[in-house]
Amino acid sequence: MTQDLMSMYLKWYELSVHALNAYRVEGEISRELIEGLVLSGMGGSGIVGDVIYSLLYDKVDIPIITIKDYSLPKWVKKRWFVIAISYSGNTLETIHAMTESLRRGAKLAVITSDGKLLEYAKIYKIPFIKVDEGYVPRAAFPLLLIATLKILEELNIYKASKFYESLGVLNDNKIMNVADEISNFVGNSIPIFITNSKYYPLGLRCKDEFNENAKLISKVEVIPEWGHNDIVGWESRYGNVKAIVLNDGSEILNYVWKHLRDYGHEVKNIEINISDDYLTNIIYWSKVFGISSIKLALSKGINPKETKSISKYKEFLKHSKLARINFREKM
Amino acid sequence: MTQDLMSMYLKWYELSVHALNAYRVEGEISRELIEGLVLSGMGGSGIVGDVIYSLLYDKVDIPIITIKDYSLPKWVKKRWFVIAISYSGNTLETIHAMTESLRRGAKLAVITSDGKLLEYAKIYKIPFIKVDEGYVPRAAFPLLLIATLKILEELNIYKASKFYESLGVLNDNKIMNVADEISNFVGNSIPIFITNSKYYPLGLRCKDEFNENAKLISKVEVIPEWGHNDIVGWESRYGNVKAIVLNDGSEILNYVWKHLRDYGHEVKNIEINISDDYLTNIIYWSKVFGISSIKLALSKGINPKETKSISKYKEFLKHSKLARINFREKM
Repeated sequence: MTQDLMSMYLKWYELSVHALNAYRVEGEISRELIEGLVLSGMGGSGIVGDVIYSLLYDKVDIPIITIKDYSLPKWVKKRWFVIAISYSGNTLETIHAMTESLRRGAKLAVITSDGKLLEYAKIYKIPFIKVDEGYVPRAAFPLLLIATLKILEELNIYKASKFYESLGVLNDNKIMNVADEISNFVGNSIPIFITNSKYYPLGLRCKDEFNENAKLISKVEVIPEWGHNDIVGWESRYGNVKAIVLNDGSEILNYVWKHLRDYGHEVKNIEINISDDYLTNIIYWSKVFGISSIKLALSKGINPKETKSISKYKEFLKHSKLARINFREKM
Repeated sequence: MTQDLMSMYLKWYELSVHALNAYRVEGEISRELIEGLVLSGMGGSGIVGDVIYSLLYDKVDIPIITIKDYSLPKWVKKRWFVIAISYSGNTLETIHAMTESLRRGAKLAVITSDGKLLEYAKIYKIPFIKVDEGYVPRAAFPLLLIATLKILEELNIYKASKFYESLGVLNDNKIMNVADEISNFVGNSIPIFITNSKYYPLGLRCKDEFNENAKLISKVEVIPEWGHNDIVGWESRYGNVKAIVLNDGSEILNYVWKHLRDYGHEVKNIEINISDDYLTNIIYWSKVFGISSIKLALSKGINPKETKSISKYKEFLKHSKLARINFREKM
């Protein structure tokens, strides 16, 4: 990991094309009828699950759930298919979820660059895609996303042809300017991203990027739920909050940013429909907001790559009860 | 709705006992085998769905999903059971979801006090529970929760005996003092509630209460996801944020509040396990935080009941495309 974070984001086009051409599933994906699909993963690996959930919401006939926890719901069992995604391969939550899936007789696939997940996949003959090492998980988003799409294609669930044809948007020469604008707007505020359920994964990605890279408090809100409670918090003007509306042109989001502006808040309305392909919009704006949060960090002399408090937290976890998992024994 | 909001919360014990004794399902709940359960509802009605999801996470063999949107995922169809919850009965999102469920041949039950949902339930012979009118939805939480539990009991999914035996906790004489303490702690800050996935519904309830009653910006975060990104935002100290940890005694939550304290943040650690029954903890702390947010509003001369910006938003919705739903035609 000697590359700096910005260089990693600037290579997203090359990384995507590489993943598209090079990644293959090792081992055979079961084609038996499945009753449901689970996407298990945390943080930058977990976002991929959120994206797939939104992508397939109106497209598939089996239930899909995302799991960002140590345990699986009871209804996940035999005949469910679990995709375990962990860039490092050592995410404790995902190892627990994977172990439990195997114990219940669910079918599995693993996406990882290394670590325990890769080791277990090989030992237990679980089909896997090994993504490239050497990145930080959040910068490896295109690798993890495309690997997951390859598994969905093998499962005959979804073929991302349009997305693959649109990867060129990652070379758009407006990206750096738009990223600058956003970075200047956010400044020292608490940025609050507001979007709809469909683009929640993008809102979450933006929040996480400003957390990790710029070390800012941030949050994400979605319509229509926003209009039932959060909206009232904006009646007062206090604290250093700013709103960024990720607007796909829907009637409600067009209302939201004007509503907030009329209440005297600082609002940035961003029209995110650069394509009619969902995944294309997701990856494009993930790049823009990623770079934007890095630029903000750099402008303040903050190291965007380093996440000291996560290291401290992981040190604690190593000595916690949760780390006492013996994969072989549990099987 | 001439009662003030505080009086409504102070009656939660009486309301709960009344709901327990008086509520019956009108019409017959289908006992055919179901393949999945949907809880559809927004805001104060939607929270009930979140609570049921967490409650049944490790208890049932069919997938459960909560929907806070106009549309249903494609996989919800015949042989799924949809519980549509809307206190007013006129929530646009829930009317859409209900209509779509019927169109797809799913089984249904309705929980409402009035409005279109009640009208349609009667016309289309959908089993329903009519809860008492005259409250604001967020104050009617015990009514909506107990009505939903009655439906789950009819479906042979869950029997809340322990919860019903524990309703007396709502008369606990410490509630007002604890509510005062929290209200003083929050003051003019942006309160951030941190808990685990299991207690996410409580965290969300707290956030929504401070939004609606105290007109504050607020947010909720859950572990273990918190440790993968949000934690980094707390490395800086800026803005007027304060953390409230809703701690059920888990190893990680015990770490979280100390971690934040060590980083110099103002943190309140609240031990929420007053019972070993999940629902008892949920309703007890919902009352405490509800009252706390009302007290905070009153101390500032703010009307806790009035939510002007929601009224304004609903006015917009009335004239939006989303309001153009013709139930009979859609059927």
